[in-house]
Amino acid sequence: MKISIRILLFFVLILNCSCNKTKIDKYNYIVIFTDDMGYGDIGVYGHPTINTPYLDKMSVEGQKWTQFYSAASVCTPSRAALLTGRLPVRSGMASSVNRVLFPNSKYGIPKSEILIAEKLKDYNYKTAIIGKWHLGHNDEFLPLNHGFDYYYGIPYSNDMDKINNNPYWSEYNRDELNSKSYNVPLMENFKIIERPADQTTITKRFSEKVIELVNHYKEDNFFIYLAHSLPHIPLYASDEFLGKSKRGLYGDVIEEIDFGIGQILSELKKLKLEKNTIVVFTSDNGPWLTYKTHGGSAGLLRNGKGTTWEGGMRVPAIFWGAGIVPKSVNEMGSTLDLYPTFMSISNISHKDDNELDGVDLSEVLFNNGSSPREVMPFYKGSELYAFRYKNYKLHLKTSSWFSKVETHDPPMLFDLDIDPSEKYNISEENPEKINEILKIINIHKEKIVFGDDQLESRD
Amino acid sequence: MKISIRILLFFVLILNCSCNKTKIDKYNYIVIFTDDMGYGDIGVYGHPTINTPYLDKMSVEGQKWTQFYSAASVCTPSRAALLTGRLPVRSGMASSVNRVLFPNSKYGIPKSEILIAEKLKDYNYKTAIIGKWHLGHNDEFLPLNHGFDYYYGIPYSNDMDKINNNPYWSEYNRDELNSKSYNVPLMENFKIIERPADQTTITKRFSEKVIELVNHYKEDNFFIYLAHSLPHIPLYASDEFLGKSKRGLYGDVIEEIDFGIGQILSELKKLKLEKNTIVVFTSDNGPWLTYKTHGGSAGLLRNGKGTTWEGGMRVPAIFWGAGIVPKSVNEMGSTLDLYPTFMSISNISHKDDNELDGVDLSEVLFNNGSSPREVMPFYKGSELYAFRYKNYKLHLKTSSWFSKVETHDPPMLFDLDIDPSEKYNISEENPEKINEILKIINIHKEKIVFGDDQLESRD
Repeated sequence: MKISIRILLFFVLILNCSCNKTKIDKYNYIVIFTDDMGYGDIGVYGHPTINTPYLDKMSVEGQKWTQFYSAASVCTPSRAALLTGRLPVRSGMASSVNRVLFPNSKYGIPKSEILIAEKLKDYNYKTAIIGKWHLGHNDEFLPLNHGFDYYYGIPYSNDMDKINNNPYWSEYNRDELNSKSYNVPLMENFKIIERPADQTTITKRFSEKVIELVNHYKEDNFFIYLAHSLPHIPLYASDEFLGKSKRGLYGDVIEEIDFGIGQILSELKKLKLEKNTIVVFTSDNGPWLTYKTHGGSAGLLRNGKGTTWEGGMRVPAIFWGAGIVPKSVNEMGSTLDLYPTFMSISNISHKDDNELDGVDLSEVLFNNGSSPREVMPFYKGSELYAFRYKNYKLHLKTSSWFSKVETHDPPMLFDLDIDPSEKYNISEENPEKINEILKIINIHKEKIVFGDDQLESRD
Repeated sequence: MKISIRILLFFVLILNCSCNKTKIDKYNYIVIFTDDMGYGDIGVYGHPTINTPYLDKMSVEGQKWTQFYSAASVCTPSRAALLTGRLPVRSGMASSVNRVLFPNSKYGIPKSEILIAEKLKDYNYKTAIIGKWHLGHNDEFLPLNHGFDYYYGIPYSNDMDKINNNPYWSEYNRDELNSKSYNVPLMENFKIIERPADQTTITKRFSEKVIELVNHYKEDNFFIYLAHSLPHIPLYASDEFLGKSKRGLYGDVIEEIDFGIGQILSELKKLKLEKNTIVVFTSDNGPWLTYKTHGGSAGLLRNGKGTTWEGGMRVPAIFWGAGIVPKSVNEMGSTLDLYPTFMSISNISHKDDNELDGVDLSEVLFNNGSSPREVMPFYKGSELYAFRYKNYKLHLKTSSWFSKVETHDPPMLFDLDIDPSEKYNISEENPEKINEILKIINIHKEKIVFGDDQLESRD
């Protein structure tokens, strides 16, 4: 059924397409991933003063998903999950000790993991990552050793390698934002080409590089992963956007990202590539609330980055292009699902590869079908804190960013469809539902194989 | 300038319009007002599980306003403000004793007030109110004595006239939602035609009545005020919508309202009336949070109904039709502004009438101009609790629905553009800004003339 519709689509494309006749049998993919942008930081997700006309339009032309999850509430594991389609505990990219990789980390993404890029490269795709990697910065872990043909970006977070002891906010009391306080390198493939990276122009350069690559790859099929290093703090915007947003510097950053997305989509249309290119926009985790007005907003969701509350892991997600049925989708999806979805759309089998935690969303994208995702595990580091089954979310443990961990016995239970803000614990009235979900959790725990911790430091 | 563009628009309409050639020189107005719907209860304002495809589309075809205020945080004063363009303390429809009118109230909207309907009727408009009135239920205060040609609806809130002592939630433990516990009358003009009003079908009947009226009035100019009595508690939905929304009964209610709006806009298009009919959708105040999942969501805004926090008075607002420039508007507007805006668009002078608190928004609607609204006073009853000047909001007093009042000295200060959730009090760093706003408040207080309290009870 799925295949026959795809074949039909293929002929529709042939008949309709006056473009690019050489390669309508395969899809291209662009994944745009922001860093620490919250669920509520886009116009169409409810932000009142951040103007995102291009993302808003993208959501109207495509699908706006309202219950879409990243697989971790911090950078490294979230990125590993998106690129492998596997929970980060499987790859060892989630640990009980370190939250993420740091400049002094020993390892990175293991060779045994297969990344989207790696798999697509086997099928002659051109593959590139523009932006933040954060899956290991020693040579063996860099993108070109994990399936990417090209890398232009920074190896870890933009607040690492700090070279003075100024507290964060003092950097913003100066006349000029100064990215020289963070000695973060900008790399091209294996080489450092700028250090410290000039972060004031980095968003713009990343967007432009994608446009350059789309033109470069247009005769081939391609997978481009644009992992913006912002709005992770420290915040920067280029001169054209500085002071432009009513929301302040954080809004300037988002508006510059939005502008770049507008340019990318417009270039795809110009090149007539929108008919076989799928663009996905999403975020790696929720907003970093401890940075106050320099952190984003989770909208109506509870808490933010670093927590297993909804605000920590539910993220905006927009799918666009290639005949995706325009609509708002309030079923569950996850960054884990991109891997199997892309493979399904491109008719590439992965059944003999590593076990995936993602599901194939293509029936929702193309055929008004239902999402096969029924569960979502919420890990903090390597520990399962919460678990969603259909509309119910069970919290075994909770924490805020800085506050100490609380264990809940009985677990807390929320109906997320009715109570997306996790305000009304209904565990007392639903002991049977709790038991049902605890059983599903046990099955999940029995099946999952943890990889060795890869987040260890050098000393 | 404004007039010449309108004349131009007039000719554009003549040239483009194959429709209804008899009356393109005047605009029609439909105001759709919901009861207790929060800022975050629509898809395009960020709700994840309430499906509002028609409102979402309306917002894309028209203008979505993100900083739009009702003039009170509860029913009666908010309605008085919308219809008169004046702060409710001027008309006496806000009081230090009673929050709203009750079935045992003595009075209602005074004869000295001029309502939008009354003014437009002088210029040969047909005028109707469908839905909840709540501005006085004795004959002299009913809509037909205040400028309306037709009234079909309930005179006060749908939770009044309760005829048993069951606690609210017990009504929902029954097999069937039973509107017979609330002896609220349904009226047509001066006559009670159904008591208790069958609230399960009331939303549907209100929407259908508007469609009937649009057809009835189509050869004339008209002003129709559709004041839905829901999602104020008790919640009801008709059989077609009961159980339809993932958000539960509250979502069913909103989705039924949304469906009706879709039907109304579609009827306007069918009759070719969308070219000279302006439809405004907004809410009377924020969500009634004390009713938990039966109350709505203020999205990212703080608190809800009955408070002068943003969640209490900032409401969704969509303007549609008649050549309104489609865009998202993040400038300030208020229900107070509908009166002068409509008069400006229809070229009707009101300079010799009562003093208004509204401003003319037509330059934003038609010409990409800026909103002239620079201030917004936040009254609780007859007392000024907070005041917004440009992006700054000063809280002199605050309260939650049930919690006791807190006085703030120095006042709390928030930058709402940067901090829409009112999280970060910046009063300490901005004593001069506070003094500036206190001076503006003094001028406001000196100028405003309070009317006599009209919310008194019979005993």
